[in-house]
Amino acid sequence: HKVCVLPGDGIGPEIMEVATKALSIAGAKEGEEFEYKYCLIGGAAIDATGKPLPDETLATAKESDAVLLAAIGGYKWDSLPSAQRPERGLLAIRAGLNAFANLRPAIVPRQLADSSPLKRELVEGVDILIVRELVGGIYFGQPRGFGTNEKGERIGFNTDVYSEPEVERIARVAFEAARKRGKRLCSVEKSNVLEVSQLWKEVVIRVGKDYPDVELSHMYIDNAAMQLLRNPKYFDVIVTGNIFGDILSDEASMLAGSLGLLPSASISGSGPGIYEPVHGSAPDIAGKDAANPLAMVLSAAMMCRYDLSIPKVADRLEAAVNAVLDAGLRTGDIYKDGTAGTRLVKCSEMGAELMKHL
Amino acid sequence: HKVCVLPGDGIGPEIMEVATKALSIAGAKEGEEFEYKYCLIGGAAIDATGKPLPDETLATAKESDAVLLAAIGGYKWDSLPSAQRPERGLLAIRAGLNAFANLRPAIVPRQLADSSPLKRELVEGVDILIVRELVGGIYFGQPRGFGTNEKGERIGFNTDVYSEPEVERIARVAFEAARKRGKRLCSVEKSNVLEVSQLWKEVVIRVGKDYPDVELSHMYIDNAAMQLLRNPKYFDVIVTGNIFGDILSDEASMLAGSLGLLPSASISGSGPGIYEPVHGSAPDIAGKDAANPLAMVLSAAMMCRYDLSIPKVADRLEAAVNAVLDAGLRTGDIYKDGTAGTRLVKCSEMGAELMKHL
Ligand SMILES: CC(C)[C@H](C(=O)O)[C@@H](O)C(=O)O
Ligand SMILES: CC(C)[C@H](C(=O)O)[C@@H](O)C(=O)O
Repeated sequence: HKVCVLPGDGIGPEIMEVATKALSIAGAKEGEEFEYKYCLIGGAAIDATGKPLPDETLATAKESDAVLLAAIGGYKWDSLPSAQRPERGLLAIRAGLNAFANLRPAIVPRQLADSSPLKRELVEGVDILIVRELVGGIYFGQPRGFGTNEKGERIGFNTDVYSEPEVERIARVAFEAARKRGKRLCSVEKSNVLEVSQLWKEVVIRVGKDYPDVELSHMYIDNAAMQLLRNPKYFDVIVTGNIFGDILSDEASMLAGSLGLLPSASISGSGPGIYEPVHGSAPDIAGKDAANPLAMVLSAAMMCRYDLSIPKVADRLEAAVNAVLDAGLRTGDIYKDGTAGTRLVKCSEMGAELMKHL
Repeated sequence: HKVCVLPGDGIGPEIMEVATKALSIAGAKEGEEFEYKYCLIGGAAIDATGKPLPDETLATAKESDAVLLAAIGGYKWDSLPSAQRPERGLLAIRAGLNAFANLRPAIVPRQLADSSPLKRELVEGVDILIVRELVGGIYFGQPRGFGTNEKGERIGFNTDVYSEPEVERIARVAFEAARKRGKRLCSVEKSNVLEVSQLWKEVVIRVGKDYPDVELSHMYIDNAAMQLLRNPKYFDVIVTGNIFGDILSDEASMLAGSLGLLPSASISGSGPGIYEPVHGSAPDIAGKDAANPLAMVLSAAMMCRYDLSIPKVADRLEAAVNAVLDAGLRTGDIYKDGTAGTRLVKCSEMGAELMKHL
C-alpha cells in the first residue's frame, strides 16, 4: 500500500514515527506491506520551498492509496500573511484531493471517562460521528476578500455557498454511516436565518427518502452546541457544513476531555483520503518527547479501515492502543495526577509499549 | 419610564406578567414609575396581522425608552416559508432599533452550580460576558438567496461581511465592558481562513490601542468552543460576530446547566435597547403554569441598569431572584429531584414569592 506520509510541523514528526512503525508491524502480522513516501507540508514546506503545499506533495498524494498527515503550524509562521501560512497547505490538500467528507468520531474512551470536563454519567458511552463537509461552504466560497461598501468603508467578506450536488454527496456519506451504526442522523444548520442552510436542509430531506431506515432529525447550530453538552448521548451521526462542523467537532472532542485520542478521516470516495489526528502541532512541547502518539496511530487505523480495506490491521492497531491504556500508560495530555494504576510516560515509551503489544 | 412590552408566543405572556409586576413593585420602592405599551411580535403578530413585526410595533418600540421582549415562535408557525416566520420579527426589531450589541452574561449562579453538565470545580465562579455583534455579519449580509452556479446547479448562498465601523463600534462596547470587569477581552474569529475575520481582528487590535489597561487576546472560534469547556474561568469578556456569537453564547449558557436564569440585552447606544431572556418560547409547556419567569425578571433588571439608569431598581430585582433561589424554590427546568432544601413550584408561585421578597 502506497502511503503518502506528511509529518508536518511541531510534534508531527515524533508522532508520525510511532504511527508508521506501528503500522508496519501490524501490517506484517497480516501480510500487508506499506511503502512510505515522505513529503513536505505546512511550515516545514514553507521553510524549504516557500509554499505551504508544494506541487510535488500534491502530486505524490494523488498517486498514493492514502495520505497520513500529522499536524501543521507553529508560532514561527504565525506572522506570515494568511495566504502563505501553514493552514493554507491543509486547505489546499483537502481541496486538491477533493476530500469532501471529514469523519470525526467523538468517542469517550472508557479508560478516560473521568478526564472529561463533563460529568461522568453524561459522557460515559458517548459515541458520536460528526460528518463535516470539508471542501465547500464559507471556507472556499467565492467571492471573498476585501473591498469598500457603498458608504466608502473598508469591508472584509466571504461567501457561504452550497450547491445541491455538494450537499447530496455529503448527505449520502452521512446516511450510509448512520445505517451502519445507530441509524440516527441529525443534520445541523441555521435554516431559520440562512438561505444556504435552507438549501442544505431541503436536500438532506430529499436524500433521506432513500434511507427510510435512518431516523433523520434537524437542529439549528446554536441548539446543537447546547445539546452536545446537555445530552450528548442523544447523538449518533451528525452531518453539517464546513464551518459549523469545524466548531461542533472541536466542541465534541472535549467530551473526551482531551484531543489526544481522536483520529479523523477526510475522504473523497474516489481518490486517496487524508488521515490525521484532530489535535494540532503543539509547538510548545515539540521536540521534548512529550507528545501523545495515540491519535496518530488511530488515524492510521482509520486509514486501514476506510481507504486500504485492511480492517484486520486496523483491529490490531486499535487493540494495541486499548492495551497500553488499560496498562495505565498516559502521556502528559491525558495524565491526571493521583489516578490509581496510571503512569506518566514519554512519547517514545508509549511507542515502545505499543510495539510490544503489536 | 416608557417600556414597550412584547410578550410574544408560548410561555412569553406568563413570564412577562411576572416580570412587569415585579418591575412595578421594585420601581415603586424607588419612586420610579413604568408605563407599559403592549405590542405584538412573532407568531402572535403573524396570526393577528400577517406580519411577524407589524409597523406599529416597531414605531412604538422606537418611541419607548426600552423594549422588554419575552419569547417568540412555536410549532404552529414552523411550516411557514422562512421569510414569514416568527424569527423574522426578532431579526427585524433588532435591525430596526439598530441594537448592534448583544450582551449575554454566562454566569453560574451558586445555587445551581450542581446542575451544570460540567464538573462543579470547573464552573463554580464562572462569570463570562459575551458581546455579540447583532445586526451585521452573515445574518444580514448581501447578496443572499438562491441561484445557479456556472455548472447550472442550484445553490443557496449568504454573505458574511463586516465593515470597519461596524467592528469598531462593537469592539468599543466590549472594551468598555471589560474595563468595568476583569479587564480581559478575548476576540473570537476565524482569521486563519476568512477575510471577514482578518478585518475583524485587525480593527479590534487597532481599537485596543485606546484601551491599554485591557488585556486583549485572540482565539479561533473552534478553539474557543473547546476552551469554553476545558477552562471556562479563563474568560472574562468575549467579543465576536453575529453567527459565532449565536453559537458560543448558547454553548456558554449550558455552563449554567439551564437557560432559566440567563437574561440578555441588545443595545444600540442611542435609542432603546431590547431586553430578553436567552431561552425560547417553550411551546411544550406554554399555558401550563410551568415556566421559569426568573430570566425574564433578570432581563428587566438589565434594562433598568443599562437603558433606564435606575440601578437601584435592578438591585432590588436581582436580590429578590437570589432570595427565592436561596429559599429553595425551583421551577421544573432548574429542579433536580433529591436536592436537599429545594421545592418544585409553578410559575405563578415563583412569581408570588418573588413579590413577597420585593
Ligand atoms: C487549521 C484550520 C484551517 C482547520 C479548519 O478550520 O478546518 C482546523 O481547525 C481543522 O478543523 O482541521
Ligand atoms: C431565533 C434566532 C433567529 C436567534 C438568532 O439566531 O439570533 C436566536 O437563536 C438568538 O440567539 O437570539
